[in-house]
Amino acid sequence: VRAVLMQDKRLTVESVPEPVPGSGEVLVEVLYSGICGSDLHFRAHGAEFNQAAREAVGVEVMDLSRPIILGHEFVARVLAYGPGTTRRIAVGKRVTSLPALRGDRQRGIGSAGIDVPGSYAERMLLTESLLLEVPEGVPSESVSLTEPLAVALHAANSANLETCDVPLIMGCGPIGLALIAVLKMKGVAPIVAADLSPARLNLARDLGADIVVNARQHSPFEAWREAARSADPSTWAAPTPFGGQSDLRPTVAFECTGSPGVINQIIHGAPVGSRIVVAGLCMATDHFEPSQAVLKSIEMRFVAMYSDAEFEETFNLIVSGALNARGMITRTVTLEEVSGVFEQLASSPNDAKVLIDPSARTDAG
Amino acid sequence: VRAVLMQDKRLTVESVPEPVPGSGEVLVEVLYSGICGSDLHFRAHGAEFNQAAREAVGVEVMDLSRPIILGHEFVARVLAYGPGTTRRIAVGKRVTSLPALRGDRQRGIGSAGIDVPGSYAERMLLTESLLLEVPEGVPSESVSLTEPLAVALHAANSANLETCDVPLIMGCGPIGLALIAVLKMKGVAPIVAADLSPARLNLARDLGADIVVNARQHSPFEAWREAARSADPSTWAAPTPFGGQSDLRPTVAFECTGSPGVINQIIHGAPVGSRIVVAGLCMATDHFEPSQAVLKSIEMRFVAMYSDAEFEETFNLIVSGALNARGMITRTVTLEEVSGVFEQLASSPNDAKVLIDPSARTDAG
Repeated sequence: VRAVLMQDKRLTVESVPEPVPGSGEVLVEVLYSGICGSDLHFRAHGAEFNQAAREAVGVEVMDLSRPIILGHEFVARVLAYGPGTTRRIAVGKRVTSLPALRGDRQRGIGSAGIDVPGSYAERMLLTESLLLEVPEGVPSESVSLTEPLAVALHAANSANLETCDVPLIMGCGPIGLALIAVLKMKGVAPIVAADLSPARLNLARDLGADIVVNARQHSPFEAWREAARSADPSTWAAPTPFGGQSDLRPTVAFECTGSPGVINQIIHGAPVGSRIVVAGLCMATDHFEPSQAVLKSIEMRFVAMYSDAEFEETFNLIVSGALNARGMITRTVTLEEVSGVFEQLASSPNDAKVLIDPSARTDAG
Repeated sequence: VRAVLMQDKRLTVESVPEPVPGSGEVLVEVLYSGICGSDLHFRAHGAEFNQAAREAVGVEVMDLSRPIILGHEFVARVLAYGPGTTRRIAVGKRVTSLPALRGDRQRGIGSAGIDVPGSYAERMLLTESLLLEVPEGVPSESVSLTEPLAVALHAANSANLETCDVPLIMGCGPIGLALIAVLKMKGVAPIVAADLSPARLNLARDLGADIVVNARQHSPFEAWREAARSADPSTWAAPTPFGGQSDLRPTVAFECTGSPGVINQIIHGAPVGSRIVVAGLCMATDHFEPSQAVLKSIEMRFVAMYSDAEFEETFNLIVSGALNARGMITRTVTLEEVSGVFEQLASSPNDAKVLIDPSARTDAG
């Protein structure tokens, strides 16, 4: 089984033993695996991430002393069942799943060693009871986006959106783009999206952003204010300290860049009563002015992951066609190309979601 | 009319012309005025506060080029009505009010000049339609706490408290103590309170804190964990990223110190899914680790002031006896003593709420 192994920050394609399904587990063939920003974090800041996770939730995410097989966004095909399974889905059928084993082995998928490979591999193991069967006719590429779209659905749900809200998306990487697709589906409009990359802003527009702003050239908040002013009849009322009433509706801003300083930028730009959903993962120490947040009665929600129910809801929305974010897929690569793609994504992010097709081979010529 | 005038950071007692009630306004005699932490901020950092408020809500709070009469917490007695009033409350009756004029003059009370004096004065003006009449038998001191208790009620309401919550109060100054009284009234228990001052911790216990922690000697979060573990049957379930379930219930922490670093301390100490209500006003730039907040799905609400309805609700709770926070009043001073009290409160905060009795005179002997 060919797989991308990560060790000492290097990514190499190697042959590893075929993983053996344990009780309640199933062996699957990976059709597509997404490359996630977390994977880039894992490689560049694995030790810091481990440290942060240990402190935050008491869990060691990765054993960095061994090779790790990344990948937690995938669509796959059932190959063989292990012991203690009901075989409810026929061999050959397509499936996806929460990225976790939940039987005898309790393990996240995409941060473990070669015995529990992530989806940067030709084959991997899943827990049978978590399998979601993909109906015929639904493109595999669409299903491979279930996980990032579940992250976005959770972020959107955390915002308690009301019809009067005019959302502002800061950062149009995969999380920002997935959020735009989810907000579009929910009918919240107009959607304002900001990024530094013209290529990503085009994707944002394709996925449903009504107004796109190149933050190198224009203030996202000026654009947002224009949009908020022209938005439909408002039923909002923001309490303003020290008398008076704000003439601006509160915004719901989604921090999707993970860059230090952006949260403070949003606090300064946002009107009284605004909500900030922080979905980007900033590993640095950040700074902000609490007095501005207090004077404006700002609410901040930091979000990660999703519930099991949100994952399944996302899958059903994709299958029904209600949620379509295939526009965020910018290319499909081979296992051999992954290492180079990591370098490109870190330096010049014109890509959004890159898929790996483990069955594809890079031409020698 | 004697009043404390603030100019160039100096507080002096002077005689000013009696204020003249305009249309819809009423002249009142101040019985008690509370000294608020904001007043200390206004004096020490008036220009910075103006700048912050201008940026946050587009309002210039104070005209620092003129003498300012502070004071926005008060109980008073009706002396005379201006034109355009219904005189619905008899002259001689006691009243309190939101600290604002809301008629022809739209002005906050407690940050204006001698034409709209705050309650650091023998007499002041109020808007008739905002007057709340104090029934016989209710102590004036209790009513003078309406404003700070409304701030606390708003903070508590912002926390969306559930019966399973174990609140942690960081800082037992007037805001923290008022919060303890409000949480006690709401029946949320156990209440854990932390401060650096043994005197304030005694007040915290008097007002209803079940567990008090001197943060110089013990970790507030260790004490909180003990309390949370022994708290009654829990129906909470916190989502933990990267698999597993937290064995700690989320906390609701109230930041009431206004000191930089404390928000980050709470983020690091709090379990997954915790909520942080920031009620303290920190004028400095602060730092924090967003990754910890993201990994723990932290929710932060920055709160200021209260709604008109919350102010009236607080008044009714005080009048009915349901909410009693007189224990936070540590002494009553004369106008002449105010300047010295400001120095003491800034340097060694063993006091909590200090009231001014403008009718009292400091003995010359």
